[in-house]
Amino acid sequence: MRETLAEWRPAVDEAIADLVPREIDDEHLETFFGEPTYEYDSAGIQRALSDPLWELLDRGGKRWRAVLFLVFVEGFGEDPEEYLHYACIPEVLHNGTIIVDDVEDEATKRRGEPALHHIYDQDVALNAGNAMYFLPLKLLTQTQADLPAEQRLAAYEMLMDELNRTHLGQGMDIYWHNEHEVDITTDQYLEMCACKTGCLGRIVARLAAILTDQPADVEQALATYAELTAVAFQIGDDILDVENSLGRAGDFGKEFGNDVREGKKTLLVIHALSESNPETADRLRDILSADTNTEDDILEALAILEETDSVEYARERALDIAATACAELDTLPLDDETDRKLREFTEFVIDRDV
Amino acid sequence: MRETLAEWRPAVDEAIADLVPREIDDEHLETFFGEPTYEYDSAGIQRALSDPLWELLDRGGKRWRAVLFLVFVEGFGEDPEEYLHYACIPEVLHNGTIIVDDVEDEATKRRGEPALHHIYDQDVALNAGNAMYFLPLKLLTQTQADLPAEQRLAAYEMLMDELNRTHLGQGMDIYWHNEHEVDITTDQYLEMCACKTGCLGRIVARLAAILTDQPADVEQALATYAELTAVAFQIGDDILDVENSLGRAGDFGKEFGNDVREGKKTLLVIHALSESNPETADRLRDILSADTNTEDDILEALAILEETDSVEYARERALDIAATACAELDTLPLDDETDRKLREFTEFVIDRDV
Repeated sequence: MRETLAEWRPAVDEAIADLVPREIDDEHLETFFGEPTYEYDSAGIQRALSDPLWELLDRGGKRWRAVLFLVFVEGFGEDPEEYLHYACIPEVLHNGTIIVDDVEDEATKRRGEPALHHIYDQDVALNAGNAMYFLPLKLLTQTQADLPAEQRLAAYEMLMDELNRTHLGQGMDIYWHNEHEVDITTDQYLEMCACKTGCLGRIVARLAAILTDQPADVEQALATYAELTAVAFQIGDDILDVENSLGRAGDFGKEFGNDVREGKKTLLVIHALSESNPETADRLRDILSADTNTEDDILEALAILEETDSVEYARERALDIAATACAELDTLPLDDETDRKLREFTEFVIDRDV
Repeated sequence: MRETLAEWRPAVDEAIADLVPREIDDEHLETFFGEPTYEYDSAGIQRALSDPLWELLDRGGKRWRAVLFLVFVEGFGEDPEEYLHYACIPEVLHNGTIIVDDVEDEATKRRGEPALHHIYDQDVALNAGNAMYFLPLKLLTQTQADLPAEQRLAAYEMLMDELNRTHLGQGMDIYWHNEHEVDITTDQYLEMCACKTGCLGRIVARLAAILTDQPADVEQALATYAELTAVAFQIGDDILDVENSLGRAGDFGKEFGNDVREGKKTLLVIHALSESNPETADRLRDILSADTNTEDDILEALAILEETDSVEYARERALDIAATACAELDTLPLDDETDRKLREFTEFVIDRDV
């Protein structure tokens, strides 16, 4: 394995460039998509698919999903260099969801620059994001000479499971944003995280297990590890948004009070609602469901979260979930070095300040 | 087979309701998506997925893709009643693309009522549309007890082929709308139709062939029939938009001069550009690429299309393509009754006035 995880990024990007080259030509289109019935417009496809994808990737990102996949593969005793193409699958899917989420959330920024639908027209950005849901899935077929039919089928059925649950999670989340009176439970919030964020983690884990031919119980345990780590990550994200808005963390690269503005029903909000008196709870609901908020509104909402010790509560829950995630590792046939890396990774997703 | 094609609609809708019930409860979610890690919010999922889907389906639509699939299945000597669930796959995919396309095109109306993103928030509409890309695909796994592994894999690999090309087609189309100087060829326009509209036809055909276990050459010939019929249908659509705007056809349910407003590079436009003198061609390009058009602009563009006999040209091309589509039927082992129905269908898609 390369010395540090960050060293994988150029190799991952090269593999992504095999899937979606920076310069698209007819030869690539014919190889990847098959002979046209009439004639491709490679210049148009370049602008509609490749340019938006590389615009986003070139802004940075740590390629965590690809790297985690490669760590899993190595942990099962295989050479990760030989699995680089498959590492693109969760990575491109993830970047596709980013583009679509930004359209859905009407986000203005992404990685410090304008969101993609502000650079390209919204229709181009959206179609590119959606294309990124299917482009990487075709890799399993494209490289089918290498992959037995059983593994291809197992991978497709796994992907259909998880990509369906992703949309359930996103559906719950955005529906909750839009409603004033949403009385969700902690478990429903965690389910939303498990679906929306966790399923992509499960794809990383299950794909690594399927492609290295692990038994079902190993695939399941690794999936649970990845899912719960992703849930802890999501809670960490919610905590960071608040801490950063309170001036307690580093530059988070997001706007001040972003989650409050979006009306997100985070674990912190659910806790604050249950710990506040009815008037305070109503006031918090009002601020979250308002179409626009003043800076004072945001500060008031943050103060309610603070008074109810919501950050501490959320951190406790995240730590519990992370511990449960790591307990799954005990059952897995991974080498010591991989086991250590994964435990560090899970610790990092909660304690990070960016 | 039921007496008329329209009689299938209630049965198709029942099958769709098995996939996405009008009333979603925890039991359905657990059966279809599996046990939750924590707890589903069935009320939220009802509002985020089921309500938008049924809002669209209940407005009408002929379920052509489902019915065509059932006609193919019967043509291969199988009982269509036993394939109703699979008929949902192309139908739900198609309706998902409608929701997403309407967001991309910023459409205001759909089937005579407000587009879905004007009824629900855009984020909810978009997520529901995207979910409809994956919900039906899971049916192949869900009903896996009935379907041998080979057919499941063949179906998934076919779907990945076709859904990727769908996004190529949509990418070309919207990129062309947004650009002033797009010098596309007739063959590139036809390729866009073959990808964007034709691939869904190919899914209908190839799914019917795969699930009834036809040899590869039959699957291919049926796919070509369906693809070319869809291309002819698309050209028919472009013709109808112009004829209706010129007051020559019935109520097409679309706005006056819609395609000109959207800046669509249709076959009619490509022909008119090549048949006009440079000034007239430039004027047509200007109108098509303008952000807003007056009624006079639209009338001017329509006049240019008329002077260059573009409607007649497009109709000739559509008829040629339809004839090529029907020639594929000669090679197929379909019963006479099915053969007749399919030839009528192909004729209808060009000559329809709605």
